[in-house]
Amino acid sequence: MMYKLLTRDGNAKRAEFHTVHGIVQTPVFMNVGTVAAIKGAVSTMDLKEIGTQVELSNTYHLHVRPGDEIVKKMGGLHKFMNWDRPILTDSGGFQVFSLAGLRKIKEEGVTFHSHVDGRLIFMGPEESMQIQSNLGSTIAMAFDECPSSVAAREYIQPSVDRTYRWLLRCRDKMKELNEREDTVNREQLLFGINQGGIFEDIRIEHAKRIADLDLPGYAIGGLAVGESHADMYRIIEAVTPHLPLEKPVYLMGVGTPANILEAVERGVDFFDCVYPTRNGRHGHAYTNFGKINLLNAKFETDDRPIEPGCSCPACRNYSRAYIRHLLKAGEMLGLRLMVLHNLYFYNHLMEEIREAIEQHRYSEFKAEKLAGFEAGEDPESA
Amino acid sequence: MMYKLLTRDGNAKRAEFHTVHGIVQTPVFMNVGTVAAIKGAVSTMDLKEIGTQVELSNTYHLHVRPGDEIVKKMGGLHKFMNWDRPILTDSGGFQVFSLAGLRKIKEEGVTFHSHVDGRLIFMGPEESMQIQSNLGSTIAMAFDECPSSVAAREYIQPSVDRTYRWLLRCRDKMKELNEREDTVNREQLLFGINQGGIFEDIRIEHAKRIADLDLPGYAIGGLAVGESHADMYRIIEAVTPHLPLEKPVYLMGVGTPANILEAVERGVDFFDCVYPTRNGRHGHAYTNFGKINLLNAKFETDDRPIEPGCSCPACRNYSRAYIRHLLKAGEMLGLRLMVLHNLYFYNHLMEEIREAIEQHRYSEFKAEKLAGFEAGEDPESA
Repeated sequence: MMYKLLTRDGNAKRAEFHTVHGIVQTPVFMNVGTVAAIKGAVSTMDLKEIGTQVELSNTYHLHVRPGDEIVKKMGGLHKFMNWDRPILTDSGGFQVFSLAGLRKIKEEGVTFHSHVDGRLIFMGPEESMQIQSNLGSTIAMAFDECPSSVAAREYIQPSVDRTYRWLLRCRDKMKELNEREDTVNREQLLFGINQGGIFEDIRIEHAKRIADLDLPGYAIGGLAVGESHADMYRIIEAVTPHLPLEKPVYLMGVGTPANILEAVERGVDFFDCVYPTRNGRHGHAYTNFGKINLLNAKFETDDRPIEPGCSCPACRNYSRAYIRHLLKAGEMLGLRLMVLHNLYFYNHLMEEIREAIEQHRYSEFKAEKLAGFEAGEDPESA
Repeated sequence: MMYKLLTRDGNAKRAEFHTVHGIVQTPVFMNVGTVAAIKGAVSTMDLKEIGTQVELSNTYHLHVRPGDEIVKKMGGLHKFMNWDRPILTDSGGFQVFSLAGLRKIKEEGVTFHSHVDGRLIFMGPEESMQIQSNLGSTIAMAFDECPSSVAAREYIQPSVDRTYRWLLRCRDKMKELNEREDTVNREQLLFGINQGGIFEDIRIEHAKRIADLDLPGYAIGGLAVGESHADMYRIIEAVTPHLPLEKPVYLMGVGTPANILEAVERGVDFFDCVYPTRNGRHGHAYTNFGKINLLNAKFETDDRPIEPGCSCPACRNYSRAYIRHLLKAGEMLGLRLMVLHNLYFYNHLMEEIREAIEQHRYSEFKAEKLAGFEAGEDPESA
């Protein structure tokens, strides 16, 4: 049994997900390292120190640079970046549709221009699986289309149908690749992705169809791309009952601590988001009393850590005043300390979430956390 | 006794320098953290891991941002940046004469424009001492003029005379500051600086005059600013016999590993240089077989560490191929790993130097090292 559901509290699930690279305790927040490196000069040694369980790398970026063939030659992503815990790779689809110079979507796949050197690249389900197989990640994501959040039914329905056909091709290709002797990780797992915009009926119909395929896990894609939080929660609530209870559910690209608390309550296991790194870059630190902006003048001589009581490497060693100075002076160390703190905050939040579910006090816990974030009060302020 | 000369091998000195922030084993290479932070997102925690004994911060930069009054309010540099070992601050003079928008040199001091906000600042010996006292460094440097390496005798002689008069004012001001109750570090030490361009007679005359002042240490300034290596070594050789044997000698801003090996042989104790960080930024790594450029295509799939056998955090955990990929992708982690390696290389070189002097085999050691650097052969290459 790959996924072991330990307990539930309402719809919130507390589980273990067993992989060839170790056990993932869920709910879990995966830490994003786009090109096999976390922004802010954070290394895999640091990730262990801040309690990271799963690292997430981007297939499209690694295909373009250094190239997945190079990574395979180096023994796969785990060896390349020196990380022995699980790695999830996305399919490349999201970047192809958002970042790259998209040329055309066809039944076979997508043609686009590389953002690095402009060369024309073709990627379809088979190519995505081949690249992810070369990377040797623990979990590979199916190649899908992630349509705009404002797309009409008339666009979404045929897109979802094609995404379903692409999933079948992904499954077949992965099976074939995992049987090859020279494959980096022959136990690579494929997660299917639910799409359907904000149309519940399309989402549910699609969820049922992919659930029938009995894949190792399922993701909800195409959310947090511009729709309201109310829509996001409504769709999660509609979809999760139609995905297998005995499989992990991954909400792609989400989100704020509040988003995560809400989604866990609706049965989500896996999360990932660039907020902790991106916000760190802008001086925003996550705390249990809301986000604070270290660039604010009031922190100029504040000798307390970002969050009093926090056990992250930044808070154990440096003051708000010092980190503020580093950020103002444009010193990379400032960003590094911010990112270490923010990722630790997310990882630690998930730990608290898991404990609250185990103790069947999740809804109280959630209410307390949300109240704290919103109060925005620095407990030790005058 | 502040400076304890343990042994000599030829003119090379092996000593201990006792300070209020601990003992410095010399010869020593100080690691440069301009604005109270090492480039490459290297923290004071990292410095301990790579064997750093003394951190060097720049008075001018810290005066401009965050402001030395702020640092004093935070309890001084040691507390501000969380570093409990010795810190040396320069006088600000070098930056004022090279980086800032210099307006005028007068007997009183120098007027210049801040490089951050353009505001007019005046700095003389008293101001420099006051700022360094606010920073609370272990060792403060005298405020001097560092003339161009191509300056004529007619410029150098009056400049050196003024630098001597400034030194007397620095000494008096520091004495006064160290007697004040609210001073951060009341045992702050003042090092005098020898100047005189490449004119041996001016250098020697000046060295004798400052030696008479019985300061805790002496620096040789104004070298490594464009003159030839031969001139640099000639001046060091001329000056060191006229500085007290029982005091540390600091060669400012020097240099390459080869420069350091040569200067140690001529009696120098302290060094600092931005090469390890600056070269790291450009993909150049120091090794015992010379510098290598990680951006070189031949390292694309090289799974060995930067230097096989090196115990730095980069070499213990990551390959040349991975670091090359990070540098190519512009990931901050690449720079961090390069800087950690290069600083470790320098710190470790000093450790080997100290051992070689203790064992009275310094000249052989130096010859072997220099031959290795020049051979440029990667020992494990095919």
